[in-house]
Amino acid sequence: MSTKRNKSNARISEIKAKRKVEISVDEIFEGLLSNDKTSLGRAITLVESNNPDHYDAAQELIERCLNIKILSTRIGITGVPGVGKSTFIETLGINLTDVKKKVAVLAIDPTSIKNKGSILGDKTRMQQLSQNSNAFIRPSPAGESLGGVAQKTREAIIICEAAGYDIILIETVGVGQSEVAVHSMVDFFLVLKLSGAGDELQGIKRGILELADAVVINKADGDNINAANLAVKEFTRALHLYPPKNNGWTAKVAACSALENSGIKEIWEMIDYYLKENSKNGYLKILRNEQNKYWLLQTIENRLLSDFYQNVIIKKELVVQLEEVSKGNTSPFKAAQKLLSLGKNSEN
Amino acid sequence: MSTKRNKSNARISEIKAKRKVEISVDEIFEGLLSNDKTSLGRAITLVESNNPDHYDAAQELIERCLNIKILSTRIGITGVPGVGKSTFIETLGINLTDVKKKVAVLAIDPTSIKNKGSILGDKTRMQQLSQNSNAFIRPSPAGESLGGVAQKTREAIIICEAAGYDIILIETVGVGQSEVAVHSMVDFFLVLKLSGAGDELQGIKRGILELADAVVINKADGDNINAANLAVKEFTRALHLYPPKNNGWTAKVAACSALENSGIKEIWEMIDYYLKENSKNGYLKILRNEQNKYWLLQTIENRLLSDFYQNVIIKKELVVQLEEVSKGNTSPFKAAQKLLSLGKNSEN
Repeated sequence: MSTKRNKSNARISEIKAKRKVEISVDEIFEGLLSNDKTSLGRAITLVESNNPDHYDAAQELIERCLNIKILSTRIGITGVPGVGKSTFIETLGINLTDVKKKVAVLAIDPTSIKNKGSILGDKTRMQQLSQNSNAFIRPSPAGESLGGVAQKTREAIIICEAAGYDIILIETVGVGQSEVAVHSMVDFFLVLKLSGAGDELQGIKRGILELADAVVINKADGDNINAANLAVKEFTRALHLYPPKNNGWTAKVAACSALENSGIKEIWEMIDYYLKENSKNGYLKILRNEQNKYWLLQTIENRLLSDFYQNVIIKKELVVQLEEVSKGNTSPFKAAQKLLSLGKNSEN
Repeated sequence: MSTKRNKSNARISEIKAKRKVEISVDEIFEGLLSNDKTSLGRAITLVESNNPDHYDAAQELIERCLNIKILSTRIGITGVPGVGKSTFIETLGINLTDVKKKVAVLAIDPTSIKNKGSILGDKTRMQQLSQNSNAFIRPSPAGESLGGVAQKTREAIIICEAAGYDIILIETVGVGQSEVAVHSMVDFFLVLKLSGAGDELQGIKRGILELADAVVINKADGDNINAANLAVKEFTRALHLYPPKNNGWTAKVAACSALENSGIKEIWEMIDYYLKENSKNGYLKILRNEQNKYWLLQTIENRLLSDFYQNVIIKKELVVQLEEVSKGNTSPFKAAQKLLSLGKNSEN
């Protein structure tokens, strides 16, 4: 009897939750289209939610956004901590809003996965840009895996585009894995570097340099100007050792001072030239199609895992099996086997 | 009728396959215990197999191996290409076999995932060590994902241990992701470096340095000796900036010349000291338990994905959906949704 009542209660809350969520999608979507930043924030919060009840609503919202065909530009920006990413993004963003572009800044931060910290989490960063009515800044979502976090950022891009943002800047820290994720969702990939005493080439990971469409030496100001110009030469030489990309592009190298807003305009002109050329020759369309295939596979992976771990029976047994494994009472393979067969038998 | 016959034929081949595999497990396992390198090679080939028919046999073999409680030492060794990993491993291996240790060398190579190449694939490498009857060398398995490749290496470790190998050296190239995988399966993690003109610290990824139990400057010979000693000082200073590990250990720094076999003995003594101390204080046991929990989760992830993609209906529809997505006829999310519901409906 008590089970029956519980079930009926559960059904009622389910209906309530559904109704609530359905209303929200309409509201949020209309808000998005009417340039309401609060709705934009709520939309991204909805797709970032780990609550299974929100999943359908989030997917519906994404599908609606995908139906709005807006041509935006997606730019990935990476660099190790200390390279001046925030200042660069803020200065670039201000330059763009000054010419009436709408700019959104999103982030993927692999360090946010474990410690729940996040780049852009500090509200005081990009203060000037964040106050601009044509700019929207969103910290990196938290999550259990890079795949999950990247997927949420990828969906946030689609929402920002539907909301009419022309340029989406996606920031990440230069530590490896996340660069590949960001590269798989942008039209142009920019690596920020500092000049230094002979370490121009050593400090960079070959893999990331190969992804770059441009390498920008930041902090080319004051006493640093000569070193920065030297670094530009060294990188230009080094990047010419790589074969050109599929579209014939060789990564460009430039110097700038984000702090003094020097060189930023020229960097944007270079990016803009790239975008126009590769739009004309059809490369950007091919690139986005390839990226969509990648995201098809990523979406499947993320859903398979989250469906499995959200199963209540699995959740409970996982705690038991982790304990048993850590005590050495069972092997990780045997424990995995047990959980997997539980998962198979308890699917609805 | 034809379906019936097909089914019956399928059943017969299934029984045949099972019978064949069952015989193999016994044979292979006995061979393993009697120090037969061919059986060891066959055992690893079995766990590396992507053929679903081999899965049960592989699991049975692993379980049998896990029942043999042998205390081995697992050491991870990483370093970028050119640092002299093969020479270091060969020289260390020879030093160890000289004192009657049985040494197995395994590898995880993330670059082998896409291009099917593999470190240790070149038969001429480690020629002297490979001819030693107490040494076993195995190239990195090929695979579709780092997770899959790492899992296979992890299982190969268990097999080598059951076969009585005292020391398992796991090699990887220093490009990022794979270090985390190797770190999660070893007792001691060693990073190989070269000395250079001022680039000692810049060239290394912070994340990897944090994993290191020791940093070894290789090629400390000839004109390089002074630079190597300088590098030792710089790294020692740098590593002291990190907080000590959970077990109170601060990463040690040493120089060696693998080519001239100088400094290798001292490095082994340092590792041996570490192992004895951390065996006494219980840390190694805690570490392995934690690693087992990690591998429980990894095993689940790998199985969920491989089960999904090995489904024949999914395989067929995936080709269609990838095509539709790349033509822009559907969104990656919608396509993923379709494949996921197909997967749900076609489970056996």
